[in-house]
Amino acid sequence: MPAKKTLPGEFQLIERLVQGLPISSRTILGPGDDCAILAPAKRPQLFTIDSMIEDVHFRLAWTTPEKLGAKALSVNLSDIAAMGGTPTACVINLAIREGLATRFFDRLYAGIRAVAERYDTDVVGGNVTSADRLAITIALLGEASRTVMRRDLARAGDGIFVTGTVGDSAAGLAILSGKLKASGAARKFLIERHVNPTPRIAAGLALAKLRPTAAAIDISDGLLQDLGHILKRSSVGAEIDVAAIPLSPAYRAAMGDDLNLALSGGEDYELLFCARTRLSEEALTKALGVPVRRIGSIIAGSKILLRGVGARMPMRRGWDQLRTGS
Amino acid sequence: MPAKKTLPGEFQLIERLVQGLPISSRTILGPGDDCAILAPAKRPQLFTIDSMIEDVHFRLAWTTPEKLGAKALSVNLSDIAAMGGTPTACVINLAIREGLATRFFDRLYAGIRAVAERYDTDVVGGNVTSADRLAITIALLGEASRTVMRRDLARAGDGIFVTGTVGDSAAGLAILSGKLKASGAARKFLIERHVNPTPRIAAGLALAKLRPTAAAIDISDGLLQDLGHILKRSSVGAEIDVAAIPLSPAYRAAMGDDLNLALSGGEDYELLFCARTRLSEEALTKALGVPVRRIGSIIAGSKILLRGVGARMPMRRGWDQLRTGS
Repeated sequence: MPAKKTLPGEFQLIERLVQGLPISSRTILGPGDDCAILAPAKRPQLFTIDSMIEDVHFRLAWTTPEKLGAKALSVNLSDIAAMGGTPTACVINLAIREGLATRFFDRLYAGIRAVAERYDTDVVGGNVTSADRLAITIALLGEASRTVMRRDLARAGDGIFVTGTVGDSAAGLAILSGKLKASGAARKFLIERHVNPTPRIAAGLALAKLRPTAAAIDISDGLLQDLGHILKRSSVGAEIDVAAIPLSPAYRAAMGDDLNLALSGGEDYELLFCARTRLSEEALTKALGVPVRRIGSIIAGSKILLRGVGARMPMRRGWDQLRTGS
Repeated sequence: MPAKKTLPGEFQLIERLVQGLPISSRTILGPGDDCAILAPAKRPQLFTIDSMIEDVHFRLAWTTPEKLGAKALSVNLSDIAAMGGTPTACVINLAIREGLATRFFDRLYAGIRAVAERYDTDVVGGNVTSADRLAITIALLGEASRTVMRRDLARAGDGIFVTGTVGDSAAGLAILSGKLKASGAARKFLIERHVNPTPRIAAGLALAKLRPTAAAIDISDGLLQDLGHILKRSSVGAEIDVAAIPLSPAYRAAMGDDLNLALSGGEDYELLFCARTRLSEEALTKALGVPVRRIGSIIAGSKILLRGVGARMPMRRGWDQLRTGS
């Protein structure tokens, strides 16, 4: 017989965890009722959900409860950033297992709270349930900017840009799982990029002001895979200059010239965008508040052409070809 | 090393599942981008999240994929009903495990789709992830009525009412798990009440029109436990006439005079409400479109007094005393 849906300990836990969570005037009623009540939204709303499951998306030995909580919210915030919106309110479903102390959950929620406060996001409700694995599922609402950056807005001739550096998170994961060696500051940097990603909210808001409106996506599944999503929705192809892909010094220290993780490793939570703009990388970097690099152009067709790896290498659109070798 | 966050099969699955899901003009952009885009809400919004995890909240042997999908959405709809709102849009996080065929997920989503269509709810986005257990987590938005039924609105002198019958779902679960015997129509009815509950959306909307505004909650954790939530939030006590608690003929056939599951079994998803009204049970039944029974009164204090089980039996507020013996 399944366990009861809700156990006494779960009630006590949720009542404890919701103490002191950030709530703004946007929220009429926070946690504690059947639903939260939010003030009417004046602008179109963005709505997304994402989940982190123990031993699938994270291992407790590889992070801290605070960073785990922070990341669970950050990966959702990243989806709002990718559409150029402002996060407003979230609800959290927490699946708990035996063997985790109350202190663990206090620290997990401290991490959630810190990120929620930083990005002015109300935590308006939660649900705690028993499970055999810890899982944190967050649904997040945001307010759209005047225009929304959608995946279907890329047009031939657009430049393809990426914020920050890519591959760091996958390299950090490879280090944690013993598949890649790195030491000192490089090791620390790459692991931190994996366990504590930064959602590019401010960059997304700045980017949403570009005209014509850019197509954008956050890099959660890997550069080529996420580019593939834009290409498919926009019915276009892309030419990528592999030499232009932004790599961190730490990535280079650990991976050398191996671009595999930069091209197809996920969870960087940087923004990949396609825009018709005369702004230079420097001007975009200034406008977005984060380094921006142009890595290629949108072209007609449906393929991704990689320049700079020996000869031109035509690839099937998307990610599956590269991933076969990963 | 954890599995990659998103696997090729998951992409194909989510693209398949989102085909044909109900989308209204409220939704500017449905599944397929980083976030869904919803039209601005004119009224305050209700926001809730709930999860169903395999072998915690359900067993596949005890239900059908269609009913499982339907229930996963219905338990969320029930939270909207309890506040008297109209559901509008949901996002679904699906954790999948090995051993389930595409056909299973098609049927699961057919069940979600049927309930979404019936209650005019847009399914605007989804996320599929790997796990070792099937889990369906849904976050649901609704539009508030002119007044919202909150748990903190109960006042001494209010009548305490319940829709439908209680204990059926817990009896159905007890039958499925071999702890209770029943046969024929009673067995079928009780099991159906467990695996295929009905969210009381129309009743909640009608109830939200009562003045003064009722306090309400849906019975997900058990009658006394959920009543305890209202009492705590409203700082009042309650007197319950045990003989008035509405039981189905099937419950009586299976349980006889044993009220344990009616008092503390969960997942009925009926509405429990406290209202200062001169309307009779019959008038309320007509107004709400579902049988309504008065089971007691709100009193000063903080205790639940049960009348009709021998002498008056004072109980500590809430559920823990009863549950000790369950």
